[in-house]
Amino acid sequence: MLTDRFDESLDFFTRVYGLTLSGQDETSAWLRAWDDYEFHTLKLTRSDRTGIGHVAYRAASPEALARRVSAIEASGYLVHGWTEGDMGHGPAFRFEDPFGHVFEIYWETRWYEPQQDAERAALKNTASAFTGAAPRRIDHLNLLSEDVTEFRRFMETCLGSRVTEMIQLDNGRLGGCWFTVNNKTYDLACTEEHGGGSGRLHHVTYATDQREDILRAADIFLQNGVHIETGPHKHAVQGTFFLYVWEPAGNRVELANSGARLILAPDWQPVVWTQTERMKGQAWGLKTIETFHTHGTPPVPKKEH
Amino acid sequence: MLTDRFDESLDFFTRVYGLTLSGQDETSAWLRAWDDYEFHTLKLTRSDRTGIGHVAYRAASPEALARRVSAIEASGYLVHGWTEGDMGHGPAFRFEDPFGHVFEIYWETRWYEPQQDAERAALKNTASAFTGAAPRRIDHLNLLSEDVTEFRRFMETCLGSRVTEMIQLDNGRLGGCWFTVNNKTYDLACTEEHGGGSGRLHHVTYATDQREDILRAADIFLQNGVHIETGPHKHAVQGTFFLYVWEPAGNRVELANSGARLILAPDWQPVVWTQTERMKGQAWGLKTIETFHTHGTPPVPKKEH
Amino acid sequence: MLTDRFDESLDFFTRVYGLTLSGQDETSAWLRAWDDYEFHTLKLTRSDRTGIGHVAYRAASPEALARRVSAIEASGYLVHGWTEGDMGHGPAFRFEDPFGHVFEIYWETRWYEPQQDAERAALKNTASAFTGAAPRRIDHLNLLSEDVTEFRRFMETCLGSRVTEMIQLDNGRLGGCWFTVNNKTYDLACTEEHGGGSGRLHHVTYATDQREDILRAADIFLQNGVHIETGPHKHAVQGTFFLYVWEPAGNRVELANSGARLILAPDWQPVVWTQTERMKGQAWGLKTIETFHTHGTPPVPKKEH
Amino acid sequence: MLTDRFDESLDFFTRVYGLTLSGQDETSAWLRAWDDYEFHTLKLTRSDRTGIGHVAYRAASPEALARRVSAIEASGYLVHGWTEGDMGHGPAFRFEDPFGHVFEIYWETRWYEPQQDAERAALKNTASAFTGAAPRRIDHLNLLSEDVTEFRRFMETCLGSRVTEMIQLDNGRLGGCWFTVNNKTYDLACTEEHGGGSGRLHHVTYATDQREDILRAADIFLQNGVHIETGPHKHAVQGTFFLYVWEPAGNRVELANSGARLILAPDWQPVVWTQTERMKGQAWGLKTIETFHTHGTPPVPKKEH
Repeated sequence: MLTDRFDESLDFFTRVYGLTLSGQDETSAWLRAWDDYEFHTLKLTRSDRTGIGHVAYRAASPEALARRVSAIEASGYLVHGWTEGDMGHGPAFRFEDPFGHVFEIYWETRWYEPQQDAERAALKNTASAFTGAAPRRIDHLNLLSEDVTEFRRFMETCLGSRVTEMIQLDNGRLGGCWFTVNNKTYDLACTEEHGGGSGRLHHVTYATDQREDILRAADIFLQNGVHIETGPHKHAVQGTFFLYVWEPAGNRVELANSGARLILAPDWQPVVWTQTERMKGQAWGLKTIETFHTHGTPPVPKKEH
Repeated sequence: MLTDRFDESLDFFTRVYGLTLSGQDETSAWLRAWDDYEFHTLKLTRSDRTGIGHVAYRAASPEALARRVSAIEASGYLVHGWTEGDMGHGPAFRFEDPFGHVFEIYWETRWYEPQQDAERAALKNTASAFTGAAPRRIDHLNLLSEDVTEFRRFMETCLGSRVTEMIQLDNGRLGGCWFTVNNKTYDLACTEEHGGGSGRLHHVTYATDQREDILRAADIFLQNGVHIETGPHKHAVQGTFFLYVWEPAGNRVELANSGARLILAPDWQPVVWTQTERMKGQAWGLKTIETFHTHGTPPVPKKEH
Repeated sequence: MLTDRFDESLDFFTRVYGLTLSGQDETSAWLRAWDDYEFHTLKLTRSDRTGIGHVAYRAASPEALARRVSAIEASGYLVHGWTEGDMGHGPAFRFEDPFGHVFEIYWETRWYEPQQDAERAALKNTASAFTGAAPRRIDHLNLLSEDVTEFRRFMETCLGSRVTEMIQLDNGRLGGCWFTVNNKTYDLACTEEHGGGSGRLHHVTYATDQREDILRAADIFLQNGVHIETGPHKHAVQGTFFLYVWEPAGNRVELANSGARLILAPDWQPVVWTQTERMKGQAWGLKTIETFHTHGTPPVPKKEH
Repeated sequence: MLTDRFDESLDFFTRVYGLTLSGQDETSAWLRAWDDYEFHTLKLTRSDRTGIGHVAYRAASPEALARRVSAIEASGYLVHGWTEGDMGHGPAFRFEDPFGHVFEIYWETRWYEPQQDAERAALKNTASAFTGAAPRRIDHLNLLSEDVTEFRRFMETCLGSRVTEMIQLDNGRLGGCWFTVNNKTYDLACTEEHGGGSGRLHHVTYATDQREDILRAADIFLQNGVHIETGPHKHAVQGTFFLYVWEPAGNRVELANSGARLILAPDWQPVVWTQTERMKGQAWGLKTIETFHTHGTPPVPKKEH
């Protein structure tokens, strides 16, 4: 994630949102939630703009990585090739969707290792000390694209993702599409870009254990002057209990809770929402706020007239 | 699940525990939670004893089913062969562990279809109408066996399960082992039989969306005179928030909540608990109640002296 | 509470909202929550209109009742005099505010007595069997009046209520005022009538034990096709976690949770909210929905042009 | 509260339990929860022993204070007389129960005033900034006495308290008694001393907004190596959801949640629990842990033989 207010963003993510700092150098901070098993799940980088630098998936095995690389190379999508990796993981294969979002896929990772006793979990089946913060683990991110149908083809081809839910607009276009590579209901969502931008981020989300963690976080955001955009409420699509805020540089971040919902059926058929159904608003009737349709990062420069 | 008090057990599961009835014939009732996608996840059968008739896993595909059948046939474990299926699923291949628990594996299933409007979910991504009841979906079951190490070999061989956590006793034996075939932390657990029985059930568990659902269920159990054995509390192993009760015939059933915890690392190494660690009790210090070590179904007849 | 759809309203309150029926005759149903100690806290009456018939307070003692009656008689407000009481309480003194809302005050009441074992609470310190429903006890009601300052004088004079919070508009008027006669943050609220009506009801509210009860109720309302007007969210004024729905006849009812908040300071000074502060919306930024300002019962007939 | 491990106790109360520091001098720290309206609700004092120095009640008015002082002076109980007050309140009248517990009653208090912006509440109806910590306000304390019946007479005579629940033992003695001076279910409890001590403290309790705050606190206590004595669970008596821990010096502290339960009936009759009922354990069947009956502060010296 890129920020043009690095210090404020880092303060937000560590002190208010509740991630912990695994490492830092001159330009970036490596962050994770208390039960993320990897060294980092969010790399925050100082930049002259906001938005997302790249998205990285971990493959299921070295063999799975090789299969994915072959598929990507054969796909015709733009390939950047191998990078040496990062502080938090090994070599990564880099490629790009047609809308300017850069992806990576890697196998070798760095498991988080507590550096001191205070960082060690009381229960050995959790990755590090319980901090009391709402985010337990990375959940998903949401990208914007001008053509969700094309984005869907990209995800199915390059990552082997399956679609769990989607929005079918009256004009024949997809309004949004939710993807997963495991039993989670989604690990990446793509919704239609309405702001004229390209390669933009809609939001990044961490999962909480309970809905109550989100209600409590709302009071923490309120107390700390954070812009709460919408929520807490429950999405109709995917049924996720949500809260969206903007970190100081303007990137949208979410806290979400899916309860016990998982996609356990191997033959799950995508749930298709019509435009009419979507216009009913969120699950409990909240009308979707206007900025939710238009705000992405980086912002799109206003055109001269 | 077998019961020698069929009417009382059925009343418990539908009116108190909160499952819904999909079908019934002279000897059995087919039950499910409101978001289970299959026709049934618990078949309750009138019998002269309690315990479990069989355990059934759904394969990931027809090909996966064929691979499993080959592996099981080659394993040397007792094979019963194909059955024609059940009201809720198609042909199933039946086999048995060395301790007398019967397993089935099948691919063809019957998706739950609401029969009337009142059964239809308000949100199309859930399987049926929200009833307000605590159980959202089947979660796991726990069997007892005299040799957990041998049971582990059975599960890895026949079902391709992986172990996520286990208890290593000082005497070199495994005290318990937790298995999964997906991203859930476990779908089946096996703990050591201390009561002299064979092929016994320890408990069956449904997952709730929130921990609060379990606290509320505790008051419902209290009000309805259900025997609450232990909980609500949090397990050290797997970190699950739990509540155990005995249905009228004596079978132990659980409500559990794992929060946002999943096993997402493809190279997850089993968490190993020592005997000393286990003797500390549950996560927040509750000492494990004696019956939890000894009560299983069916009960073991007291020996004559 | 008056309803011109009696059967539907009664079905809503008992089957969906979660009150229990204490008694019924040809025109009315006497309802209560599972931990209300009195025979009834809501009397639902068949009528040709909606809104509220009267509001009743119980005095703290026979002497307190006598003192109140004297104060009311001396106040100059409209006095109806003594009534013989009701199925649920003894003689009541009836009077009226300047806006057409009828009030009663009484001392003798009928404690709820379970009529059968299934209605008896498992814990003897609760009034009746735990039903699992969200409402635990009556909390407050909200009336509309054309002059909140005058309504405040009425409440202080007649009931000895104290003000815990209020809204001071830029035009010098009070926009709303919250009253209590005990340690609850409020038992009655009055907000300014903007719809041209008189003697109207804004809403009636029951308290839930936990915020989670309200989130769960939202799913129950959704499943049962109830009109959810706004929420779940947190009020800035009084900090109450709320959910507003309309029962079938159009009366607004709320579920609310105040957490551990009480007014324990004997010298509590009213919290005064400015118009600017109120325009910020609810605690977590939700804009107040338009109908919340205009919808009351009975509805005001549209004027001819 | 007295502590012989002042630094550790202060660290516990501020960093782990979640109180905030209002003031400190060489021997004491003045602490409060984030929504306590007074300057302090817990004064922690360096001492050579543990236990309680004194208990202080605030009167409802100057007149109420005068009435109480007259009643206490006429009661025959030991009177210490007026003190000049404390950093947190004005002149206090000091007296003592027959078991060595010192009480104070005062009217003039110091309302908490935020000293800097970060301490100021985002919502003006709460006393200070929401810290995210579990304790919202002081709730009650529990003292031990050799004769609960006599202690009851003391409370009714000196403080005008009313009894909401009590335990009637088979031997004719009271096993415990719960008192209140307002609508809370209790502000002070007294249970029978079984350890041979005198003037001892059983525990001090703060109230949380939700039960979930207590479950989350349990994980924080676990992570910080705090001794969790019992809970989270629900008391049968008063129905309070509880968690008991020992602060580093050994004083027992509780977090508790009563949901929406209040004593609103002016003619509430004490709920009387028999010895048989009490032996059933807590609400959901947890057996009361042995130390809960014996551990108080200060500890009683073991006798020489």
